[in-house]
Amino acid sequence: MNLLILVPVNTSAFNESILEHVRPAVGKDCSVSVRNLDSGTSCIESRADLAINASHVIKAVQQAEADGFDGVFVTDMDMCGVEASRQLVRIPVIGGYRASAYTAMMLSQRFAILTIANADDMQREHARMFGIDNNLATVLALPLGVYDLADDTVIKQMLVEYAVRAVREFGAEAITFGCTGFVAYAEHLANSLQKLVGSYIPVMDPNRCAINYLELLVRNKLSQSQKTYPLVQPNLAVMT
Amino acid sequence: MNLLILVPVNTSAFNESILEHVRPAVGKDCSVSVRNLDSGTSCIESRADLAINASHVIKAVQQAEADGFDGVFVTDMDMCGVEASRQLVRIPVIGGYRASAYTAMMLSQRFAILTIANADDMQREHARMFGIDNNLATVLALPLGVYDLADDTVIKQMLVEYAVRAVREFGAEAITFGCTGFVAYAEHLANSLQKLVGSYIPVMDPNRCAINYLELLVRNKLSQSQKTYPLVQPNLAVMT
Amino acid sequence: MNLLILVPVNTSAFNESILEHVRPAVGKDCSVSVRNLDSGTSCIESRADLAINASHVIKAVQQAEADGFDGVFVTDMDMCGVEASRQLVRIPVIGGYRASAYTAMMLSQRFAILTIANADDMQREHARMFGIDNNLATVLALPLGVYDLADDTVIKQMLVEYAVRAVREFGAEAITFGCTGFVAYAEHLANSLQKLVGSYIPVMDPNRCAINYLELLVRNKLSQSQKTYPLVQPNLAVMT
Amino acid sequence: MNLLILVPVNTSAFNESILEHVRPAVGKDCSVSVRNLDSGTSCIESRADLAINASHVIKAVQQAEADGFDGVFVTDMDMCGVEASRQLVRIPVIGGYRASAYTAMMLSQRFAILTIANADDMQREHARMFGIDNNLATVLALPLGVYDLADDTVIKQMLVEYAVRAVREFGAEAITFGCTGFVAYAEHLANSLQKLVGSYIPVMDPNRCAINYLELLVRNKLSQSQKTYPLVQPNLAVMT
Amino acid sequence: MNLLILVPVNTSAFNESILEHVRPAVGKDCSVSVRNLDSGTSCIESRADLAINASHVIKAVQQAEADGFDGVFVTDMDMCGVEASRQLVRIPVIGGYRASAYTAMMLSQRFAILTIANADDMQREHARMFGIDNNLATVLALPLGVYDLADDTVIKQMLVEYAVRAVREFGAEAITFGCTGFVAYAEHLANSLQKLVGSYIPVMDPNRCAINYLELLVRNKLSQSQKTYPLVQPNLAVMT
Amino acid sequence: MNLLILVPVNTSAFNESILEHVRPAVGKDCSVSVRNLDSGTSCIESRADLAINASHVIKAVQQAEADGFDGVFVTDMDMCGVEASRQLVRIPVIGGYRASAYTAMMLSQRFAILTIANADDMQREHARMFGIDNNLATVLALPLGVYDLADDTVIKQMLVEYAVRAVREFGAEAITFGCTGFVAYAEHLANSLQKLVGSYIPVMDPNRCAINYLELLVRNKLSQSQKTYPLVQPNLAVMT
Repeated sequence: MNLLILVPVNTSAFNESILEHVRPAVGKDCSVSVRNLDSGTSCIESRADLAINASHVIKAVQQAEADGFDGVFVTDMDMCGVEASRQLVRIPVIGGYRASAYTAMMLSQRFAILTIANADDMQREHARMFGIDNNLATVLALPLGVYDLADDTVIKQMLVEYAVRAVREFGAEAITFGCTGFVAYAEHLANSLQKLVGSYIPVMDPNRCAINYLELLVRNKLSQSQKTYPLVQPNLAVMT
Repeated sequence: MNLLILVPVNTSAFNESILEHVRPAVGKDCSVSVRNLDSGTSCIESRADLAINASHVIKAVQQAEADGFDGVFVTDMDMCGVEASRQLVRIPVIGGYRASAYTAMMLSQRFAILTIANADDMQREHARMFGIDNNLATVLALPLGVYDLADDTVIKQMLVEYAVRAVREFGAEAITFGCTGFVAYAEHLANSLQKLVGSYIPVMDPNRCAINYLELLVRNKLSQSQKTYPLVQPNLAVMT
Repeated sequence: MNLLILVPVNTSAFNESILEHVRPAVGKDCSVSVRNLDSGTSCIESRADLAINASHVIKAVQQAEADGFDGVFVTDMDMCGVEASRQLVRIPVIGGYRASAYTAMMLSQRFAILTIANADDMQREHARMFGIDNNLATVLALPLGVYDLADDTVIKQMLVEYAVRAVREFGAEAITFGCTGFVAYAEHLANSLQKLVGSYIPVMDPNRCAINYLELLVRNKLSQSQKTYPLVQPNLAVMT
Repeated sequence: MNLLILVPVNTSAFNESILEHVRPAVGKDCSVSVRNLDSGTSCIESRADLAINASHVIKAVQQAEADGFDGVFVTDMDMCGVEASRQLVRIPVIGGYRASAYTAMMLSQRFAILTIANADDMQREHARMFGIDNNLATVLALPLGVYDLADDTVIKQMLVEYAVRAVREFGAEAITFGCTGFVAYAEHLANSLQKLVGSYIPVMDPNRCAINYLELLVRNKLSQSQKTYPLVQPNLAVMT
Repeated sequence: MNLLILVPVNTSAFNESILEHVRPAVGKDCSVSVRNLDSGTSCIESRADLAINASHVIKAVQQAEADGFDGVFVTDMDMCGVEASRQLVRIPVIGGYRASAYTAMMLSQRFAILTIANADDMQREHARMFGIDNNLATVLALPLGVYDLADDTVIKQMLVEYAVRAVREFGAEAITFGCTGFVAYAEHLANSLQKLVGSYIPVMDPNRCAINYLELLVRNKLSQSQKTYPLVQPNLAVMT
Repeated sequence: MNLLILVPVNTSAFNESILEHVRPAVGKDCSVSVRNLDSGTSCIESRADLAINASHVIKAVQQAEADGFDGVFVTDMDMCGVEASRQLVRIPVIGGYRASAYTAMMLSQRFAILTIANADDMQREHARMFGIDNNLATVLALPLGVYDLADDTVIKQMLVEYAVRAVREFGAEAITFGCTGFVAYAEHLANSLQKLVGSYIPVMDPNRCAINYLELLVRNKLSQSQKTYPLVQPNLAVMT
């Protein structure tokens, strides 16, 4: 099984850290590669970034299918180009949001999303669109952009603070992240919450949950429904 | 008041007919212009077309603001680039879906959407995303693409047939169209429904409703909330 | 186009201020008149007031149609007699609630209503009835009755205070008023919010939004669905 | 315990049949009286009839409290004046809709309403307003007005036909009536359904369920919440 | 009419107090008995207790029908064995949750549940399952187990404190209890709330509401729908 | 990783076929065992069967944790004992419903459940309880009990027939099974649907999806939230 992680930005800066992080989580018979975009913006922090990069994602996904990959995980919580790509290929294409959200729902009644600045409303919309907003306790935006995610210590503290607030004030019972740039924080946060709140509260790792979910799909020979995502011939979408 | 109708495809083929159609509906103090995209696809029939054209729409909307327009109506029912543009400008930007849907909800309890082939699921999603799916009776897709919309007689018959089905089988009490290419069919359909169903059933004209709604916003000095659509500096979305 | 503003109370005290306030907002080809009721109570602050005045509203609306008006705006947020009138005439009849609420939904994801004392629960019910409660952040009742609305300075301050609370505590992203007696406060509130919250937050003017929405309906030759509001012959509703 | 059945129309034609029908269902320590309105229309078949009669209902309910009744059942499925009355008295006031609907929900997952001509949309609205529309299988309107309810044989047949359709096509698992004029049909319909559908399907008698529910409230010393229905002083609602 | 109160625990400790408490509330022609389980746990404080005791409840309910009872009230807010029993007998079987919740909904727009430690999430689930979660203001768990319910003074104070919080912070307009062990606290709490909050707020007594609701069902010859709860032959469920 | 499949019935008849069927789907580092119950009924076809077997499941799950298993999949679509077990152990415990439903939701907008006789309403309830009923197109019950599942040819035909109906009449875009006894039918059904409907429609294999989902949880060191499922000490649930 050959899976592709597609980092939907115009830089390879995140490729290695994500790949290293997910590798221990995948099955032994599963090979994972990583690619980024040639064009577009360097991060996704708004609907504008999404709109710009989506047109590049669809080409990269078509290329992935042509190259023989069995499935693509677009490592973004806002589904950058995911819904569009699904109408162009037969292999499964997923983003991070649903994998994290459904896993949180598997384990609890209401989950919270901790996300980056300005992404909260966009991510409430996804919950509505997927028909699961009843299960969303809250979305809290940390005052951080994607490129502020470099300082580990500050972020770890901030995530703990916001997670505790999500639990205490909004009744969250599980935590997901709204940015796949939150690599390798899930375990630390779960441990901290256990101490501070006194109960085990699951924290989804966005990249690992998604790559494992993609594995599940490929193992089960499952892909997106062509009723929901009618397959369109590439020539119907000719660019000038 | 200067309003822009932006036709989000790479052809000027639709410009004149839309402009002529909406002009009688706008107030006398209101000037309406029309523009299309330089790039992208020639029609929007899938999420892939949406993804491709959205990145061009956001540039055209930024240009419209720079050129002094007071508001932009992107004449598309699937909000091609609308949500993204709203984070980049201060003038109001709207698509066709909400104007039609809310007007239908103003006049009835449940409305149906008659749309083109393959667009039905996409348009059910919008109703979820806007939190109004309780008011949606059904979405019915006619077996037609955008470029099949040329033959008036066939389309008129087909719209009547599907509208009657929406009313009788799905309890629709008002009709909207899922494609702004359905120019100038609303009145004929309303008259036909009156005869066939025996009651007046409102049919929204997608372009007229939207341009009048945009007028309402501009007259009231209203624009999109920056809480929902945080304003991002253009330099945050630099393309390579 | 001849539109009627019907003030659904037994006093002409509000007529002039409302008419003067909305006039600049309507199109030049649009003539607006104002009438009040002969009987009923002098304000609407409870479901009891609604029940009493509704029976007078339906007669006034029938008279408006007989007098050749093209549409009626009953200037009340609680739809005093609106739903009932819609079964008796062919011209469009609207209240203030939907025009404000849908416009807020056009511009944001969740809106709040600031209303007068004791009206909050009634106005939560409307959101349920219209199938839009998912979009309602909160309803906050100011400790004021209709006849306390005279003192401008106090009200302006209070509206700012409650609006800030709606935004900060309840996540409101747009503001509507629950009383059409809040004439000419929208602009001041929007400006104050901009300063205090730091983002533009749209505030709907209840009378202007509604009269412009009525214009939209009349321009588009639209009226209430007779499936939702079956036309009843006046003689079916004979009074003794 | 003294309960009043208020028939919210300007005729005493229904009083005796309703009183006789409910008497066997009430507890022995419970005295039931019946009254009708002096004014208003002779039946409730539209929102217009509701609006006209509601203002008379509130006076009759205030009188009932003054006369020492412990609770009032307004025998109407559309809550004619019920919500308004609740703000004026301390004794419990109920209509027929909630008593039937909640009892159906106590016994099944989804119920249908069989109602008279043109009342279906109005009764869908109530389900929304009470936050229970998820449990409503459908509302089917028989082609009958209130004064057509005299011919027993025809009505019985028609109710069976529509109930079977509600069960088979819409998945209804319990049946309620949308008109309290459907006196004494519940048992016949339940028996017929048992034979035709092959399973026991509960059918709520609208008047009996409601009077028993009112008993429950009075026995438990319960009345409407003054948070939902703030008590207004009669002088706040002075009529001219 | 012979009704059985089934206390779904392996002790008779609660039998007398419950029976004495409900007796004054039932009609004179209504005889009420009480039984407990032979096996199972001594209280229900978790889904584990529910699972253990449910299998004993279904046998006790079958026995009740064999003994000629007309209906069974399983005095538990978590429906211990209720849904299962309903597939095995023809007489109506109810728990406490729906009777309290629907009565609260009859009288208000949003109600809160005050419950024992750890039961809050379970009781939010019931509201979802019954399709009424829109009407649930909140569920607050007191830091008490079932066997802490002995000390009256402490509990009364605690209930008042939590009820006030439910009203002020969560907008509750009626109060129900999440444990049928809260015997005889409703009146005290309603009186206290009246003083502290300044408005009458209905408080449902869980045992009385339920037994009266069961009376309503039996008087109306109503039982659970066999469409929702298909009757299964006991031999289909043979235990080894 | 050691996973246990617990077949929640009192027979080992299904053990081997399920184990053989799932084994090819699990990762190479993953060992899967199977056990059944000592007591209880021989199949789960009603809420009564669920109630009886649940008390045995919780003991078997506690034993599994004591024996060092890393996770338990109770191979039942109705969560027999799953929710109860989750309060007693620290290892993840899942049933079949959520794994299938969430995977269907990952791939489509609306899914249908094909289930055995009489299980349809129970399975609609689960969708409500998990807050995902917006995504459920329908539940169709085949006229078959668990022990009728032996005849492959008949079942295959029947599944195809019901699946086509779910797609055409109810708009289903993905198919799940309501019984984990539907072993090894998913692939055949997907292939048949492709031919009959003309589009690829994903069909979830209930046992494989669930065991892979359990793998995902264990790989990610995730388990049920103790906020949703507070851990109770076994001695709080002492049986007599």
